[in-house]
Order: sequence, then structure tokens, then C-alpha cells
Amino acid sequence: MTVTDKESNEMSNDVSNDLTDEVTSDDLISSDFVLHQQLKQDTIELADLPLCKLLLCNDSAYPWFILVPKVAGVGEIYQLDWQQQQQLLNESSLLSEVLMQVFVGDKMNVAALGNVVEQLHLHHVVRFKTDAQWPKPIWGQQALTPYKADELSSLKAKLMPILTAVFA
Amino acid sequence: MTVTDKESNEMSNDVSNDLTDEVTSDDLISSDFVLHQQLKQDTIELADLPLCKLLLCNDSAYPWFILVPKVAGVGEIYQLDWQQQQQLLNESSLLSEVLMQVFVGDKMNVAALGNVVEQLHLHHVVRFKTDAQWPKPIWGQQALTPYKADELSSLKAKLMPILTAVFA
Repeated sequence: MTVTDKESNEMSNDVSNDLTDEVTSDDLISSDFVLHQQLKQDTIELADLPLCKLLLCNDSAYPWFILVPKVAGVGEIYQLDWQQQQQLLNESSLLSEVLMQVFVGDKMNVAALGNVVEQLHLHHVVRFKTDAQWPKPIWGQQALTPYKADELSSLKAKLMPILTAVFA
Repeated sequence: MTVTDKESNEMSNDVSNDLTDEVTSDDLISSDFVLHQQLKQDTIELADLPLCKLLLCNDSAYPWFILVPKVAGVGEIYQLDWQQQQQLLNESSLLSEVLMQVFVGDKMNVAALGNVVEQLHLHHVVRFKTDAQWPKPIWGQQALTPYKADELSSLKAKLMPILTAVFA
């Protein structure tokens, strides 16, 4: 199938309606999805959204969150079907806005890189003009600084009620 | 109306037949949008898509493209309205797939950073396991290597016919 064929198939879907009216998670996700071992190791699972797992990167240096679509065998955003892509965008934008409000950040960095872990995952990092790497990207710059138990509890207490309300 | 506006409207009408029957570029973009001076300086304008300017970063080290929504005063994806966000996703995914096919890349890196240039812009970088920075992100790692005239002509000859067909 060429790009052009794929485009017309994807684009033929009606994208004008609200996403969640008729969509259930069963339509969006793969039953055989398994979270990549490296992501499992470096993160803390916070929530299951309709499409994505929401992970907190275990690095207290930055408010750094990762969305992983629960779809098996996908490494690029464009490999998702159009409905999944829209849902990813929806979850990403809601998450971004919540994070910027809760952490009062200067800038949101959103990125699908995947040079090391091939499973599609979308980074969301709240950046501050005062942070250690500003204005450089954070990836690969320094070792992760794991959260202490009380830091993690505090972060969850601050964030989860708002996330739960927004994604309810 | 400038030539660019006219082209943009024509392209929008075609896309809108698939996306929704009522969308035109005029609904998506701001009449007072001005490309940020730094982006202007570091890139070569390739095309006007319905929502975005498509720019080529003037760095021959990587196939590195940037989409800039022609919307004034926006720094984050979630600040676009939902229709604009969907159109950005659509243009980004089509572009990503074309680039991966044309350049036969190993990985697409897509990122909205904006720590230096606050105007919303979405990087699309085709990565190769053999490239200078693999697997690290490319931003801020080395000085840009401007294209020579023949390299630029060759890139355009390879890419533009396919892009034009896909976005027609």
C-alpha cells in the first residue's frame, strides 16, 4: 500500500465528532500489548487511559511523564490507525495542559523519539527556565535520580485527583 | 490574496473533502501569523500546507523538517483548537510516513520542544543507526552544516513530487 492509498483510507474516517462518544478501549487497544521491559524498569505506572498507559519516569529531576499506546507492534505515530492517533493526541493534549497547570512549568516538551526503546512512547516533560538542562533537551544528559517515597507520594497526591477528574 | 494564500486555500479544499466538508485554511490559520525570525534564519521554506508551513532545517547532517502551524501566539500543541490539533496531527503523520519512505530511515523523531524558539513548531527528523548522534537526540549537539546548492536541489527533486502528490 502506498502512502497515498493509506492517506485516503485514514482520512475517510469522520474526525469531526467527539472522540469518546462511541469509542471504547476495546476498539483502540491490543489484547496482546506488553509494556517494554526498559519502560517498565525506568518508570512508575500511574494510570490506564483509554488508549495509553500513563507512566511517570522515575527521575525526580523533571516532571517527566510517558504515554504508551496499548497497541502491539507499533513504533511510529503514523502506524496507529487514525482513530488511535486522534485518541493519542487527545490524551497527550489533556495531559500536557494538566501538567503545565499543576507544575506551573515554563514549557512543555513533547516528543516521540524511540531510538533506544522501539515501542511507541510519547514523552511529556515539564520544563523550567531554572532546570538543570534548560534550554537543552533532557534525554541522555544525566543519570536518572529516582524518587524518594515521600516525593512520590507528594507528587501523586498533587496530580492524581486532577488527572482522574480530567480523564473521567 | 498572495499566491501563497491561494495555493494554501486550494490545498486545503482538497484535504477538507476528506477531513470535513467545511474546513478551509481560513478557518485554521491566523491572518497575522509571522514566522519566527530564528526559524526563518535556520530553515528553507518548502511548502504551505493547509495548517503549517513546511520548513527544511538547513543542516545537511540529517533529513530534518519542521512544521509550523500558521497560527499566531501559540507555543503549545494544546493551545491550538481541536480542529487545528487534528490537522497538525494529520500533516505530521503524512509527512513522517513520506520522509521514512523517501529517506529509508531507521526511526522518525517527532518533537515539540520550543525551549529556545517559543513559536510552536514540530520537528521531524529521520534518524539512521549510522548517523552522527545515534541514538541520542540531535538538538543542540553540533553546529548546523548548511546544504550546498546541489545537495538542496537533489533533496527537493527527490522529495517534492511525492509531497505534492500526498498533500494534493
